[in-house]
Amino acid sequence: MNDFEFFGNIKRAEEFVDRIKNKNFLFSLVISYTETCEIPGITFAGANTDLIKYTPPADAEYLYYGNCKSIKTIPMTPDGKPTPALLTKTSLESSSIPHVVINAGSKIPPQLPFIQTGLPSGENISITPAMSDSQVSQAIDYGRIVGRTLASISDCLIIGESIPGGTTTALAVLRALGYQAKVSSSIPTNPVILKNQIAGMALERLDSENPYHIIAQVGDPMIPFVTGMLSTASEINPVMLAGGTQMAAVLALASKIGFNEKNTAIGTTCYISNDKSANFKYLISEIADIPAISVNPQLEKSKISGLRAFSEGFAKEGVGAGGSIIASLVKSKNNSSKFLELAEDEYDRITTSR
Amino acid sequence: MNDFEFFGNIKRAEEFVDRIKNKNFLFSLVISYTETCEIPGITFAGANTDLIKYTPPADAEYLYYGNCKSIKTIPMTPDGKPTPALLTKTSLESSSIPHVVINAGSKIPPQLPFIQTGLPSGENISITPAMSDSQVSQAIDYGRIVGRTLASISDCLIIGESIPGGTTTALAVLRALGYQAKVSSSIPTNPVILKNQIAGMALERLDSENPYHIIAQVGDPMIPFVTGMLSTASEINPVMLAGGTQMAAVLALASKIGFNEKNTAIGTTCYISNDKSANFKYLISEIADIPAISVNPQLEKSKISGLRAFSEGFAKEGVGAGGSIIASLVKSKNNSSKFLELAEDEYDRITTSR
Repeated sequence: MNDFEFFGNIKRAEEFVDRIKNKNFLFSLVISYTETCEIPGITFAGANTDLIKYTPPADAEYLYYGNCKSIKTIPMTPDGKPTPALLTKTSLESSSIPHVVINAGSKIPPQLPFIQTGLPSGENISITPAMSDSQVSQAIDYGRIVGRTLASISDCLIIGESIPGGTTTALAVLRALGYQAKVSSSIPTNPVILKNQIAGMALERLDSENPYHIIAQVGDPMIPFVTGMLSTASEINPVMLAGGTQMAAVLALASKIGFNEKNTAIGTTCYISNDKSANFKYLISEIADIPAISVNPQLEKSKISGLRAFSEGFAKEGVGAGGSIIASLVKSKNNSSKFLELAEDEYDRITTSR
Repeated sequence: MNDFEFFGNIKRAEEFVDRIKNKNFLFSLVISYTETCEIPGITFAGANTDLIKYTPPADAEYLYYGNCKSIKTIPMTPDGKPTPALLTKTSLESSSIPHVVINAGSKIPPQLPFIQTGLPSGENISITPAMSDSQVSQAIDYGRIVGRTLASISDCLIIGESIPGGTTTALAVLRALGYQAKVSSSIPTNPVILKNQIAGMALERLDSENPYHIIAQVGDPMIPFVTGMLSTASEINPVMLAGGTQMAAVLALASKIGFNEKNTAIGTTCYISNDKSANFKYLISEIADIPAISVNPQLEKSKISGLRAFSEGFAKEGVGAGGSIIASLVKSKNNSSKFLELAEDEYDRITTSR
């Protein structure tokens, strides 16, 4: 497919795309929260600090209902840049991919049936540990249960996330685990200095190389939960981690606790893999010998400025957008031009129905 | 299969068993609660009134972990009669059928990842409505979402329940919807008079034939939720309602709100279908033109008195035992003698590990 670029283990990337043709996909959205996102300037998700915590449940509700329940409108900036969930929704609907929502520490539960884990949200890592070591164990254990179940009932499990501020915790986790990470962000003028400062403050507390302890100190609940999911699911069936830097952090933890590399791929957008302020391709190759796939959804060609914005560095990824688009193109045999048309239709629908 | 008896639409029962051969089953356990179970003498589930509310989460935990978290031991009477979840667990494990737990009004959440609906538990119908009309709508709507998702990711969805006191609310619902129901019970000396009294007290409040209102007045949260699941799931794939009288009540509501009869079957144990104090076979034929399958797990031949008890009228069904055994025998091609052997092994495991 010309819309895809392969990196990491390129041979296996081609094989992976071939293996998942004609398969039954299941998309899972893990929603979570870290109070780190409340630091001013750290995230673009949510119009203001009070509203940020509603973004994960609102994304989940939008995927289910086409509108939100916890807030009045679909997450969008005042000038019309929508949540990446728009890309995810367009993908899942156009190719009839079923999905489930998992609450792994969201501050606000979504108003729909979801998989409950009982995990608390993460604390602000610039001032305090994200969670306790035993909460990390619990998150991994519950992730293992959920991953085993979801992989048993599908041929290919896609895992996406919605956790505002999650690139900062991912940066801290990657550094603590020994990787020279430069992370992507939902803001075009990536606040690199601020993120590095916060990660640095968190890293100063570290007094052990135990990966559970590292996650407890500088991570967030999504990372150990999705790692647990990956570890069991990849023993059963192909798994695609759908995301950018945050999924790199998952991969880094997974490489410590064990997972099946031969059944694992990472899927993202070209806006992540081509981001000059980050080093995604290098990172993935450093962490694990897995295939990576990035998709170019041609959003720069859109007639809608809110969609072009993704290609200009706003919300380049999130809510599993990249992985969903990849699965959708593989399953529906649409090309990226058709996808763009459908995304524009969806944009028109949500902006006229508001 | 000689272990099965067909009734209802017998021709379709044979076809149904044929259709589900070599399919990927998914078992879903809906746990719920009605305060009606707190009326002394109404249920056998749970050793005493304080403990009854722990039975649904304990059943769910036992299926997942092989032991319980919310209470110390697996639900069992002092003289060694176990929860029917033992039969369900033996079935699912011996045939590698994955399962999910759905909380639709349990008073206590299970200590495992489960599908959360946010539905409250039901009130005691002898003194007050079970819930509001809008809660019935909500339960059906959420059931529709869950049913659509689970049917999309499996070839045959099995739905079981764990709701202490649920046969009494089922009796009231069946009568209110116009059926001459005589219900089964978990107690061998079925407290028919008491159940009829309670149902009668609930029915006196009825002032409308609207099915939503009927459920609100005299039902429980499980009935509308599972009905919603059935209504969407049966449009997609075969569905087996696993249970006795409670699933008859679901079928009665479903016949009012709509479902696909051609994709629906009811599966239960011979201890329900042959129960002389109830009229299950007649009831099913009256309610809908669907196939029914009952299985004889030969428990009367067991060397263990706690297992023989199921054949003597204790806990004849529950936790989707009958439907699980049917699916397990179809998938594993075991016969009932092999099943009995596995159930005895499981009984030995839980009684020696206590």
